[in-house]
Amino acid sequence: MNGADILCETLLANGIDTCFANPGTSEMHFVAALDRQPRMRCVLGLAEGVVTGAADGYARMADKPAVTLLHTGPGLANGLANMHNARRARTPMVNVVGDHATYHLQHDAPLTSDIAGLARPMSHWVGRAENVEEMRAQTEAAIRAALTGAGGIATLILPADAAWSAADAGTPKAIARPMPDAIDAGLIRDAATALRNGKSTTILVTGTALRAGALEVLDRVAQKTGARVMAQQANGRMQRGAGRVALDRVPYVIDQALASFKDTEQLILIGAKAPVGFFAYPGKPGSMLPEGCRVIAMAGADSDLPAAVAALAEAVGADTAPPARLVARAMPDMAQGALTPDAIAIALARVMPEQAIVCDESVTSGRDFFRSTYGAAPHDFLQLTGGAIGLGIPMATGAAVACPDRKVIGLQADGSGMYTVQGLWTQARENLDVVTIIFANRRYQILHGELKNVGAGAPGENARRMLDLDDPALDWVSLARGMGVEAARATTAETFHDLLQAACQRRGPFLIEAVI
Amino acid sequence: MNGADILCETLLANGIDTCFANPGTSEMHFVAALDRQPRMRCVLGLAEGVVTGAADGYARMADKPAVTLLHTGPGLANGLANMHNARRARTPMVNVVGDHATYHLQHDAPLTSDIAGLARPMSHWVGRAENVEEMRAQTEAAIRAALTGAGGIATLILPADAAWSAADAGTPKAIARPMPDAIDAGLIRDAATALRNGKSTTILVTGTALRAGALEVLDRVAQKTGARVMAQQANGRMQRGAGRVALDRVPYVIDQALASFKDTEQLILIGAKAPVGFFAYPGKPGSMLPEGCRVIAMAGADSDLPAAVAALAEAVGADTAPPARLVARAMPDMAQGALTPDAIAIALARVMPEQAIVCDESVTSGRDFFRSTYGAAPHDFLQLTGGAIGLGIPMATGAAVACPDRKVIGLQADGSGMYTVQGLWTQARENLDVVTIIFANRRYQILHGELKNVGAGAPGENARRMLDLDDPALDWVSLARGMGVEAARATTAETFHDLLQAACQRRGPFLIEAVI
Repeated sequence: MNGADILCETLLANGIDTCFANPGTSEMHFVAALDRQPRMRCVLGLAEGVVTGAADGYARMADKPAVTLLHTGPGLANGLANMHNARRARTPMVNVVGDHATYHLQHDAPLTSDIAGLARPMSHWVGRAENVEEMRAQTEAAIRAALTGAGGIATLILPADAAWSAADAGTPKAIARPMPDAIDAGLIRDAATALRNGKSTTILVTGTALRAGALEVLDRVAQKTGARVMAQQANGRMQRGAGRVALDRVPYVIDQALASFKDTEQLILIGAKAPVGFFAYPGKPGSMLPEGCRVIAMAGADSDLPAAVAALAEAVGADTAPPARLVARAMPDMAQGALTPDAIAIALARVMPEQAIVCDESVTSGRDFFRSTYGAAPHDFLQLTGGAIGLGIPMATGAAVACPDRKVIGLQADGSGMYTVQGLWTQARENLDVVTIIFANRRYQILHGELKNVGAGAPGENARRMLDLDDPALDWVSLARGMGVEAARATTAETFHDLLQAACQRRGPFLIEAVI
Repeated sequence: MNGADILCETLLANGIDTCFANPGTSEMHFVAALDRQPRMRCVLGLAEGVVTGAADGYARMADKPAVTLLHTGPGLANGLANMHNARRARTPMVNVVGDHATYHLQHDAPLTSDIAGLARPMSHWVGRAENVEEMRAQTEAAIRAALTGAGGIATLILPADAAWSAADAGTPKAIARPMPDAIDAGLIRDAATALRNGKSTTILVTGTALRAGALEVLDRVAQKTGARVMAQQANGRMQRGAGRVALDRVPYVIDQALASFKDTEQLILIGAKAPVGFFAYPGKPGSMLPEGCRVIAMAGADSDLPAAVAALAEAVGADTAPPARLVARAMPDMAQGALTPDAIAIALARVMPEQAIVCDESVTSGRDFFRSTYGAAPHDFLQLTGGAIGLGIPMATGAAVACPDRKVIGLQADGSGMYTVQGLWTQARENLDVVTIIFANRRYQILHGELKNVGAGAPGENARRMLDLDDPALDWVSLARGMGVEAARATTAETFHDLLQAACQRRGPFLIEAVI
């Protein structure tokens, strides 16, 4: 048994049985070890942004980490943007990054780089197995870091000689999952007291507090106390749709976010952070809260959030409140004529199957998706959490690997989609049940808005050359087919509805280019 | 005038007039400033690997840096792999990475990350304009770092408030280009003395010593002394073909590299590093040199290499040697039947126009390209220098921006090509004169070889799932058309030859999927 075998067996002993990979020469012994382990499912991504983004989507739905396999510093670098998103979502992830054999580093061969330095900004934990003897302990430490609190990004550097050297291994064992942070009874009391003082209060939540059960409890708290419950602007996963509690998020657009909180006198945080501007804008505040707003950080992200919600409910006596208000199934009227983001949301509300997983990277085009879909069939809603575009297609890919019996629907802006378009090939290769909807507005629409905001006036030649994608227009049908994914184009609401319905009635990957 | 204007004007005053970009919100004032500068050419890449790879290809051919525009930490992260390649090529590059306004960082907004930490491993210089007053000095320092020695990667972090704040600017000026490292007359004497001692000597060169003129001088040194002249395994740019000196590179495959140096008793380095294994292999040495080989590091990478070559020639009396041996134009017989890498090289040798720029990321498929092309029309040959795949398409894109009057030919492996396939769109948008040849073997062929090398035997299911690209096969014609690039497929030597000839007789981007 060599170091790579020890790594594989330790992962498997801890239930980590899915490997998103793009290997290189320095990881060949790890590849050979994976090859000896049919229990491990290996999924190839044709660029590392696909690999780490898929690991994120997988873990959000599987509630356990996947392992990634990345090739030295540059391979890791290519995966960092989606690690950043996962870090913000608090997704558990174990990255294995191959490196040169330890004794080869002195030669500064072409692929040599400071892997730990690259990993640190986007990882909660970075380790290195300096030799085969350290392999088990380092792997266990990586898994422990991934399972700590709400979830962590663990990056384990694997020198080739640590992988290929033999060692007496013993039997790999499952490590104990670290306990979540303790709930602070004093803070629960503070929150409960605040909720009784008659002031305008918002309860801001994220993480596992956005699962259906916790939201029902929160709704009873809201009914009992008059507080408003909201979700963070971006969340790893929230459960919504018919038969669930309706919930809004903090708006992305700064003026809307400020307006949303202007009357809030008290803010209770459950896993969430106090809302801030996504960017700074000249003359506008960084915090979205009004002057003097009291903030009670009732439960940190790393505590057991459903338990914290239950404790709050008990403290306010929510058991005497009416049952949670669950949304009825609603079927909006079919849209007609021009294809708009609204028409797309309406079609989704009508057609989306039960337990769909909606992966949202629609950027500007999807901002009003909620409006039409409170009463859609119950679904999970996964977002871009760190603002690093290029997560959508990979996240949908990983979610589909985690949940083969559920339909995955990607809401994908065209500009962002191009970042990791390679993920479509993985969907074809693994025959994943994903419908990707491309919002083809043929521009970085968000940046047109931002350019206007900075007072630059109408964009000139140079600005247009950097913000528009219309010369030439991307042909998404051709791109998808090039990677083995069936695809079609819709330019009217009716065509889109029919294509979506057909795509939802079959299995396997399909892409709809929605020209809006 | 605001900080972004000062940045633009300082770049332009130093002849940096090409900006490869993928902007975001935090760079909107820089975009607006570029929009006020019609002298700056802005070229959009749909992923940051395209942006930095194009800046590398541009600078290799223009002999001056381009500027890149990247969006915060994740945007930088996406561009790091090709910055790694540029760092290894010693390409001058100025990266401008937008960041939040300085006072907004305290809020840890979603896109916040440690930008300097990410930049450091792949940069020679990292700086930050903390406010608008620092903008000119920091921009000048970045340019100076890019122009130092053979070339450096300079990364300038641009907080949004430094960009948008107003300042009294003065007139931007060109900075003095730093002097190269001095040539050490003692080392020149040592090398000259060694070249007379009758021992088997190799002169290993790279950088500007690979331009046609320096190679002619080196050939006279070789004729005078009996030494062998070789190029490093990977080089940023070398000039070759008919009318030039024929030169071989150190082989990539370790056993071939070892064999190539087994009789070398003395090694003289001109800009180059002593040859080492690209990777470590169990039981094989890291250095390619035989025991006891004497190494004379005659001229470092940051010295004036053509001057060092001239000094060596003078020291050995090469002026009494015969004129340099220049290769005659050779036209190999047309290949017939099955399409092979050799058939592709032969077609190129016949068809490639004068002064073509060949961008090589063909990995295994192009290893024998030299054999058939010593006597091809004179051309520049640009390589993957850092082993981080995904450089090819962007590098060709940037080279074509730098040299609009020359044909650019990309030799592109399929697996590597997918990493930054988005670059084809930029070729279409800018109507660049690039022919991309995809070596479609539908696998990571190099890794099949390496897996065999580690003794893993025939690949099983998991290994094949990670090393093969055949299920489904990529349809490169469809991919190219999806991005507005005309394309066709060749499966025989004859079809390939005809397609290449047609592509070389027209202008504008074209892609040939060569199914080998």
